[in-house]
This record gives sequence, structure tokens and C-alpha cells, in this order.
Amino acid sequence: MMTFEGSHILSVSQFDRESISKILTVSSHMAPYAMRQKTCHVLNGAILNNLFFEPSTRTRVSFGAAFNLLGGFVREIVGEENSSLSKGESLFDTARVISGYSDVIAMRHPKMHSVSEFAQGSSVPVINGGDGANEHPTQALLDLFTIQSEMLPFGKSLDGLHIVLMGDLKHGRTVHSLSKLLSLYNNLEVTMISPNALQMPDNVISTLTNAGHKVTITDKLEGNLTCDVIYQTRIQQERFPSQDEADLYRGHFSLNRELYQQYCQQHTVIMHPLPRDSRPEANELDVDLNELDNLAIFRQAQNGVLVRMALFALTLGVEDKLTQYEKPVTWFTNKS
Amino acid sequence: MMTFEGSHILSVSQFDRESISKILTVSSHMAPYAMRQKTCHVLNGAILNNLFFEPSTRTRVSFGAAFNLLGGFVREIVGEENSSLSKGESLFDTARVISGYSDVIAMRHPKMHSVSEFAQGSSVPVINGGDGANEHPTQALLDLFTIQSEMLPFGKSLDGLHIVLMGDLKHGRTVHSLSKLLSLYNNLEVTMISPNALQMPDNVISTLTNAGHKVTITDKLEGNLTCDVIYQTRIQQERFPSQDEADLYRGHFSLNRELYQQYCQQHTVIMHPLPRDSRPEANELDVDLNELDNLAIFRQAQNGVLVRMALFALTLGVEDKLTQYEKPVTWFTNKS
Amino acid sequence: MMTFEGSHILSVSQFDRESISKILTVSSHMAPYAMRQKTCHVLNGAILNNLFFEPSTRTRVSFGAAFNLLGGFVREIVGEENSSLSKGESLFDTARVISGYSDVIAMRHPKMHSVSEFAQGSSVPVINGGDGANEHPTQALLDLFTIQSEMLPFGKSLDGLHIVLMGDLKHGRTVHSLSKLLSLYNNLEVTMISPNALQMPDNVISTLTNAGHKVTITDKLEGNLTCDVIYQTRIQQERFPSQDEADLYRGHFSLNRELYQQYCQQHTVIMHPLPRDSRPEANELDVDLNELDNLAIFRQAQNGVLVRMALFALTLGVEDKLTQYEKPVTWFTNKS
Repeated sequence: MMTFEGSHILSVSQFDRESISKILTVSSHMAPYAMRQKTCHVLNGAILNNLFFEPSTRTRVSFGAAFNLLGGFVREIVGEENSSLSKGESLFDTARVISGYSDVIAMRHPKMHSVSEFAQGSSVPVINGGDGANEHPTQALLDLFTIQSEMLPFGKSLDGLHIVLMGDLKHGRTVHSLSKLLSLYNNLEVTMISPNALQMPDNVISTLTNAGHKVTITDKLEGNLTCDVIYQTRIQQERFPSQDEADLYRGHFSLNRELYQQYCQQHTVIMHPLPRDSRPEANELDVDLNELDNLAIFRQAQNGVLVRMALFALTLGVEDKLTQYEKPVTWFTNKS
Repeated sequence: MMTFEGSHILSVSQFDRESISKILTVSSHMAPYAMRQKTCHVLNGAILNNLFFEPSTRTRVSFGAAFNLLGGFVREIVGEENSSLSKGESLFDTARVISGYSDVIAMRHPKMHSVSEFAQGSSVPVINGGDGANEHPTQALLDLFTIQSEMLPFGKSLDGLHIVLMGDLKHGRTVHSLSKLLSLYNNLEVTMISPNALQMPDNVISTLTNAGHKVTITDKLEGNLTCDVIYQTRIQQERFPSQDEADLYRGHFSLNRELYQQYCQQHTVIMHPLPRDSRPEANELDVDLNELDNLAIFRQAQNGVLVRMALFALTLGVEDKLTQYEKPVTWFTNKS
Repeated sequence: MMTFEGSHILSVSQFDRESISKILTVSSHMAPYAMRQKTCHVLNGAILNNLFFEPSTRTRVSFGAAFNLLGGFVREIVGEENSSLSKGESLFDTARVISGYSDVIAMRHPKMHSVSEFAQGSSVPVINGGDGANEHPTQALLDLFTIQSEMLPFGKSLDGLHIVLMGDLKHGRTVHSLSKLLSLYNNLEVTMISPNALQMPDNVISTLTNAGHKVTITDKLEGNLTCDVIYQTRIQQERFPSQDEADLYRGHFSLNRELYQQYCQQHTVIMHPLPRDSRPEANELDVDLNELDNLAIFRQAQNGVLVRMALFALTLGVEDKLTQYEKPVTWFTNKS
């Protein structure tokens, strides 16, 4: 298992199954604080720097809220830091300076591998909040945590699940990273439903098949939704090679209540990385699913806070001290 | 009286006189903390999300400072969240996600009724910080609180006052909402001084007359300022139907020291929602009034913090616990 | 010595040697907290307003982190406040309002003397974070603190040092303010190395010579680097009167490892206000110096936090209470 204390969190590739298990366990320990059954002040006085060279509001706020929930302060740099970089400052210099003001850094940047480059100059742990088309490891971890916790009431673990990935599988960074994490588990069945032009890249498929999982590739959702989890991503019309192909597939990769009842199992859970396009013409994941208990998309977003709390606790080495710094909630809350 | 705990604060219309009275009383209990005679930590560990789809610096900072003064953390989203909405996300989805990161939300949005729509998806109390031309209830409450507290030294209550509303009464959202709140009290005399083209809308006038108050409408300030309170709003030249009318009225609806001494009573208090245009050509509220004790405009802004503290305390149900979480101020302060 | 409690920090000119000494001593007391050997909560519940009319990310974050390290909350206004000013609000009115939400204010503004003007309306201490071409006193103080602390291991104090100022000395606000502070000490030798067109202004030179210091002016670094401290600033090509002169001097005012070893003393410390232009064509301060212990540029940035902590502690009168509000660090840190 990796040593978390003092480490950077840069890529899903740095985790083995035991490390993932540790992260998911610590994440579940965070639920009472995130759900406001109690508060935790273990990081009182610590400073997170939210360093977002590219805006991503909810990832930023999720990191910030997670740090506050452990008692820490948050300082933020959004977009504007570009000014120093445009004056020719290297990411190394920026890291040396900003890490001097921080106990831990969450960073997002439009350029691939920039977060790793930055981390080399940082004197404190750096958590990758998305570096362009490359990685967004906290999203993959929260997706995995969601699958695990949604399956628990049905007596299922991460091994042996049947998971459907649906939508634009070619460009969806989230389904690539999630697939890499899933490959660490056993006996999965993964059905990949997408238009032909937007199929999952070969290297992601082979990561799964090399690990012994059963992969099915199709462009039809009908009859292919008998599964434990459907993970839907957005399909943007402009991704298609031609308008004909876009028209051909329009509305064929999105779920609504009727399709769910016709093709899914009673326990099938629906996930989506959000934001969901709710405009009628997009019909990405119909709002008529909102009342369905198995629509997990908002719990999934909430789980992002748990996973980020866990990563802060692990990299700062406080995961065993949480209960020592607990206090009762003093205010009204209907979260729990 | 309304139940505050867990409720949204969306409109002045939701309050009866008893609810208002509760808010004003709790606001006055906040004064020792806001004036730094002591600190209060009752919301330690709680998170406010300041969700400003439209920038409004001082409303935002006032909400944030109010929450800090009760011990809580503040996360902020300013403008940029539009990105998710422009990807087609509904306000309902945004609310479901953001409320998962928050204990309470203060929201401002340029679109009328958007805050109410958002509140329907939120799992935590939402406080309207202004939704376009519709409502800005915390401004109306701080105005009412200011009138009450300024009249106290003169042995006057909110009943039986003579209040002058002056300036652009047609477009001034603040004087509309304040008038609605004033209609809940007894035996008021309200003088409305404005250019003919910028008179108070009929529905606001009838709200006051239906409640039995005496309303006088005029376009002359001379002889009409014998009152307890003057509430002045800005007049922008571009609001007039013609340049002739603008020229006709130029400088006729603004106060200075000379006019104050000539026409007002010795105890007449001057209010303004701020910012005040201090440029000579605007002459909105002359700077020669700055040394006048009865110029209440800066106390009025400060009262916004008290009222927002009160609304946080009430919606989070801690208004009776404040003294339990008091601590002495450790630092130098000249506020008290 | 000046009275710090309740005072504004606006200009290096307001300090005598005793006041500076006090600031530097308190700054050194901040090191254990900034280096995370312990935490300090003396300002728990206090509010800093970071009021940056002009963006300056690292100055802003440095102020914010400093305040958090003393336990206080930070509210921020970046750029957008212009909206109220553009509506004609005076700096005086803005100050009256914002200081009502704050216990202390750090302010940056593009206009000379605007921070002083603002301070006249503020009911709480205002610290100048840079007002255009005029002053940036916290930068000068952190530079002085860095010189003092870097010289300590060599048994040297601020008196009697040989300091080289190099680069664009005409436009570099930092070297002007630093020179003014240095003039308070005794028996300095100051060598000013710059292209002819970018020489130090006469009034700065005479401040030093009038105080009895030896000043040497040259356009050659060769043979002129036998000193205790080199303070390098950036040279921007567009500052030269002609391309010929720019070409003439290109690369002649920047340090690298080879030049350092050839011309400097073994203990010579290198400083730079950062950001450093690391692009090869700029060659401002070569990255081959990064491994050199005497490259103090990142410690210098870190010292900004100490000095800002000290100014908060002094203006809020808590500099003698720090140890009463100490707590152990609960999390992993490799800062100390």
C-alpha cells in the first residue's frame, strides 16, 4: 500500500487495490461529519490553497467544503494567477512560493501533466483536481466510492458487478479513469454503449480485458441495461463526424423513466458526473427520473466531499485522529 | 409567527408583524458581537455558501462577515457558476448539488423568482440576496431595523412615524419592499417626493393606504421634510422621459446641510441604501452632511450585518444559544 | 517609536529605526507558527478584508494566509468593487462601509495615494498592499527582514553591510522603498548596477548618501559583486529608449552559477522580489542557481507571511499574547 502521509495525489495509476480500499474506508468514516451528525475540527488552523488555473466551480467548492468540514481554512486562487505565469514564471517557482503559504494544495490546470510538474516544486501535498485531458483522480475515486456504497444495501461488493458505461465514451475522461480503477477488482462485466464514432479507446478496453473482465461493446441500449450500475455521460452533438450520424443517434443514449422500467433491474443504480443537461432537446437523463430512489447522481456529488475529506486526512496524516476532534453540531440541520 | 428554523427567506411578503418583530429583536442581540464587545462561535464548523450569480460586492461581503461573526466558514461562487447553467443544468440540479456542500446558502441572481426556484431543490435554508427587479428582503429588513433603532433614543417606535421617501420611487426596489414592511405597522404618515415621471407605483401606494396609513404624493421637498425619517434613493438622469424633464428637476430631490437645517426637524434621520454618488454633478446626498449625527447611512450599512446574522441564527435555530458560545475579544478594536 | 495599535501602515516613511526593529522582532516570533511547529489562534473570530482593486495574487494570498495563521477569517474583494466606485462612490464612503465589516483591511489599488485616502474613512487599521507607483511597504519590510535573517548565521547585522542592487533601478518600486529603509542603518555600502538608462533616481541616492552611506553607481557587474547581498530586479526590454541600447545590455544584468562563483563571496545571498522570468530569453536569474543554499528568493517570499503576521499582530495589539493562544499542530507537516 502507498504511504499517504506527505504524498501527492496525481493519478489513478498510483493506487493499488489496498490503497483504494484505504481511501474508500476513510471516506466512509467522513459521512457523519459531512451529514452533520457531528463536526470535526482536526485541521483547525491548517490552510488549503485551492489553486484553480481553470475555473471549475463545483470541484473547487467541493474541495473547499471538504477542508472546512475538517476544521481548516481555505485560500483560493482562481484564474488570475496566470498573470505571474504570463510574466514567465515557471510552475516550479509558483509551486515553491504558493506551497510556502499552504499546508496542502488542490490544483486544477488546463494543461496535461502540469499538476505533476507543479508538485515537484511543492513542499506540501498536491491533489490533482483535473489537468486537462489527462486525469481527474478525485472524480474517479468518488465514482468508485458511490458504486461501492450504492451496492452495499443489495449485499454486493465491487467484485462481480455488471456495470454499463453509456454515452460519449471516447472523450469522457471520467469513464476512462473509472475503468482503470475498476480493473483492480474481480470478475466484472462491463457493457459499453455508445455511437460507433464515440467508442471507448482501445487502451481502456484492454486494461479491463487484460485484468480478466468481460467487456461488451454495442451501440444499442435496448436489452443491454440488465445491470447493477448505469454510468451515463453527456453526448455533445458537435462530437459527431457528420450531422447525419448525429441525427441517426439522437436521443438513443439517454435514459428516462419508461426505458428504466422496461430494461433495467429493480436495483439498477443510475450515475452521471454532472452537470446534467436538462434542456428538452438534450434529454440527457430525463427529469422524470428525479423521484427514483436509485437515481444516485446527487448522492454521487455529495460523495465527492467525503472522498476529498479522506484524501486531505490521509495526506495530512490525521485519519486516525478524527474522533478526538469531534464536537456536536450546534445548529439546526436536516442533512442527517 | 412563521417557523424560522429550516425555512427559506425569499420575500418580505412571507412575514407577519410578529415574525418581523422576532427578526428585529434577534438583530439587536447581535450588536455586541458585530461591535466587537465580544465574539460568538455558535456556528463553528458550519458552512455558508455565498452564491452570487450576479456580483454585488457589499451584499456578498456583508453576508460573509455576518456568518464569520457567528463563527462559521464561508465558501463563495461569484459569477462563474454560469458555466454549469450554460451547459444546460437546471437551477434545481444546481441547488441539489450546492446545498450538499452547505449548511445555508445566500443567493443573488439577476432573474426574477430564480431564488425561489432554486430554493425548491435546496436541502438547506436559502436566503434571497436579491433576485433581479423582484425582491431584496434583507435590504428591507435592515432599513426597517435602522428606522427602529434610530428612533429609539427619541422615545419613538415604528408606529406613528412620519417617513419621507424621496428620489426615484418608481424604480427603487428598496423603497417598494420597505413600504410593504411599513404597512404592517400603525398610523404612519408617508410622504413620497419624486419627479412626476418617477412616482411610486400604485400598488405600493395602495398597500399603505389600505392598511390605514396617510400617504402624501408631491414633487416638492420644500416644506415637506418635517418628519422623523428621510429615506433618499438615487435619481439617474437616464430615467427621465426627456432631457427637458431631467433639466426641470435637476438637483431638486437631494439633500444638503442647508436644506436639512431649513426644512427638517432636529431629530430627523437621513437614510440611503448606498452607494451614494458623491460626484459634484450628482449631488445625491451632499458630503456636507457627513458630520451630522443624524446621517444614519453608514450605521444603516452596518445594520445589514446584524440583520443577516439574525437571519442565519434564526434559520439555523441558534438564536437562543448565542451567549453559550461567547468569548472575549482578544484584539484591539475601536468599534465599540 | 510609533504606536502600532490601531494605526494604519501606509508608507515606509512612517517608521523610525526603533519601529522597524519592533516589526522585525515580532516577525521573527511568527516563525514557529508559519513553519508549523505550532499553531496560533489569537485572532479567532477576527475578520480581515482583503480589498484588492487591482489583482495581485500572491500579495493577496500572503496576507490571507498570514491572517489565517493567527486564527482569523478572511473576506475578499478582488477587482469587482470598482462597480460601486464607478457609480460615483467616494473612497471615503467605501471605507466607512467596508471597515464596518472588518477588524483590519489589507488594500491594493492602482492609483497613487488612494490607500491613504481610503484610510481616512476607515474605522479599522488599513495596511497598504501597494498603491500604484507609490509604495508597497510590506514588500520593503520583508526584504529588510530577509537581509537581517540571512546575515544572522554569518554574525552580521543590518549595520555595515555591502548590498548590491541590480537590474532596472529606475522603475523598481521595491528597491526604492528598500533603500529608504536601509538609510536608517549605519555604514552601508550600496552598489547600484544598472544600464545607464535605468539608473536609480537621484532622490533615492541622496537619501542614502545624506545618511552617510557609501553609494557606487556602475553599469558593470564584473568585479562589483564582492558583497553580502545581491538584490536583483527584472529588466524588461521595453524599458530601454532604443533597441540598440537594449541589445547592448542584453544579459549583462543577470546572475547565473558561473558568474556567482567567479565574482561573489562565499556567503553572498541572492534576493529577488519575484516572480522571476525563467524563460531562456529572459535569463533573469538562472535556474542553475536553484540548488544554491544562498539563493534566498523563496525564503524571502515565505518571510512575507511572517512580516504580514507581525503587522496584523501589532496593529491589532496582540503581539504579546501569542503564546497564550498557541496549540500543537495536529497534522503531518514537513515545513519545520
